[in-house]
Amino acid sequence: MHPADQLAAASERSGSIACVGLDPRPELIPPVVRRAAVARHGDTAEAFAEAVIAYHVGLLDAVAGACAAVKPQVACYEAYGVAGWRALEETVRAARERSIPVVLDGKRNDIGSTAAHYAQMAFGGAPGLDGAPMPGLGAGWLTINGYLGADGVSPFLDAGTDAGAIGHGVFVLVRTSNPSAGDLQDQPSGPATVADRMAALVAAWGAGREGACGLSDVGAVVGATWPQQARTLRAVMPGTLFLVPGYGAQGGSAADAVAGRRPASAGHCGLLVNSSRQILGAWQHDGGEDWAGAARRALDAMNAELAAALLATA
Amino acid sequence: MHPADQLAAASERSGSIACVGLDPRPELIPPVVRRAAVARHGDTAEAFAEAVIAYHVGLLDAVAGACAAVKPQVACYEAYGVAGWRALEETVRAARERSIPVVLDGKRNDIGSTAAHYAQMAFGGAPGLDGAPMPGLGAGWLTINGYLGADGVSPFLDAGTDAGAIGHGVFVLVRTSNPSAGDLQDQPSGPATVADRMAALVAAWGAGREGACGLSDVGAVVGATWPQQARTLRAVMPGTLFLVPGYGAQGGSAADAVAGRRPASAGHCGLLVNSSRQILGAWQHDGGEDWAGAARRALDAMNAELAAALLATA
Repeated sequence: MHPADQLAAASERSGSIACVGLDPRPELIPPVVRRAAVARHGDTAEAFAEAVIAYHVGLLDAVAGACAAVKPQVACYEAYGVAGWRALEETVRAARERSIPVVLDGKRNDIGSTAAHYAQMAFGGAPGLDGAPMPGLGAGWLTINGYLGADGVSPFLDAGTDAGAIGHGVFVLVRTSNPSAGDLQDQPSGPATVADRMAALVAAWGAGREGACGLSDVGAVVGATWPQQARTLRAVMPGTLFLVPGYGAQGGSAADAVAGRRPASAGHCGLLVNSSRQILGAWQHDGGEDWAGAARRALDAMNAELAAALLATA
Repeated sequence: MHPADQLAAASERSGSIACVGLDPRPELIPPVVRRAAVARHGDTAEAFAEAVIAYHVGLLDAVAGACAAVKPQVACYEAYGVAGWRALEETVRAARERSIPVVLDGKRNDIGSTAAHYAQMAFGGAPGLDGAPMPGLGAGWLTINGYLGADGVSPFLDAGTDAGAIGHGVFVLVRTSNPSAGDLQDQPSGPATVADRMAALVAAWGAGREGACGLSDVGAVVGATWPQQARTLRAVMPGTLFLVPGYGAQGGSAADAVAGRRPASAGHCGLLVNSSRQILGAWQHDGGEDWAGAARRALDAMNAELAAALLATA
């Protein structure tokens, strides 16, 4: 199945365009989970991994059926080395077991021959010493940085595709959600900006690669913190799925998050709106014992907010 | 010690501006090493890790004292998951034990709060569940992608620095070595190009952060495949250390690789020229038994070529 159609189907089943960000920062893990892990392993990377796996498996059970995807943030895992990478593998495996699409947030990039290895990390297929294919993480999508141009992007699109099949997707950074995004992205480039140029590249890379839902497997990261730019960028990328970070904790409202939507006539709105801290840290407001319930209630509230915002712009 | 002074000192000790790229692709590992690992572990990720560690420890012994740094390519390791990450940890550890500066090639990037985790991965300091600091990989430098602007770069510079000390450095992608580099980097931006804009940001980020050698801890990646651009970029970044990929296998000559040098009057030439395949795969030309000797001879030849090219431009 085309990866955009998979996401659109998950969105339809759940009635949600929300993506639950899995950023395992220690302070976001409920104390009851942290304490159990430290009691067994001390204050070690192994304790971190055990706590993360326990927390994420519980969270995934809580959010399954109510979100369109989950987004593990690779940085938070790899800071803990081998143990952290094991926690990442277990997190992705648990999401797949629950049929939740996985957007791996790694913002990877390199020249073509090396980018292929990052694709193998995310999607599988690295050759063993005698050629046996390694499984990789088994994600459906990966965030990437397009600064290197086409030959740094194409290995991600070719990954794991036999006979021209389209198996995985990428989200290319176009307009990031952070305060300094404009340092380069707002620089003028001809009549447009650098971000507009990147958007034109993304549209070109995705042309002809659309699924039945009308969206391609080359998505774009467009931060909720820049609604005006999101509208401009949608005009440049009409058939592109937007991964929208920056909703909630970073300051973007629901109206901001849906600013880059496709018109209602297009079918799927073309958005996947991420929230990490508001869901992962929801337990902080009610004591932390019912952390799974707190996460689900936060997700339900986010879904309702986004649905209302979409309705208001339909 | 300032990280640029550390690199300059390693360069002076070894009489070399070469950086040995450690890209553990299976086909670059000598058959004798591959066979031993597969015999023990089958065609698995564990066999890959064992072969990589054995190969890299031998290589590091062969090149120690004759290069300025080594550059592990993270993509090649993480495609093999937990086992690959273990091989990366062991590779960095072995380089440190031999006092060889380590430039971790990860091209990481994210918004500030997440970029901090990538810095912890490379340089250490991720907090355990109860706050104990994790070691990280212990690299000296990390390649990063500056598309997100200042707040995505500063966490890498603040990492591990107490009381304003400068402990680690970064190389920001400015002009990459791949054929499609110009897709975005050559786009006009005002009177200059996007790469020139990035160069101006890199110069600004590094201003006031120079070591005794006159070079800052904010370096730039400038591919050997674009010598004309390297000269232009040097004018924008006079106090910036250039990490120069693309020499040899990718087509850049020694003269191309030193095109972005600082003037001889400046002291250190401001270059770190990388070669991966020509050194790692040197055994392919002589049967593969004396792979360590083959690597050292390839490195010696590279050093001689670069020294001649520097002399010709002095």
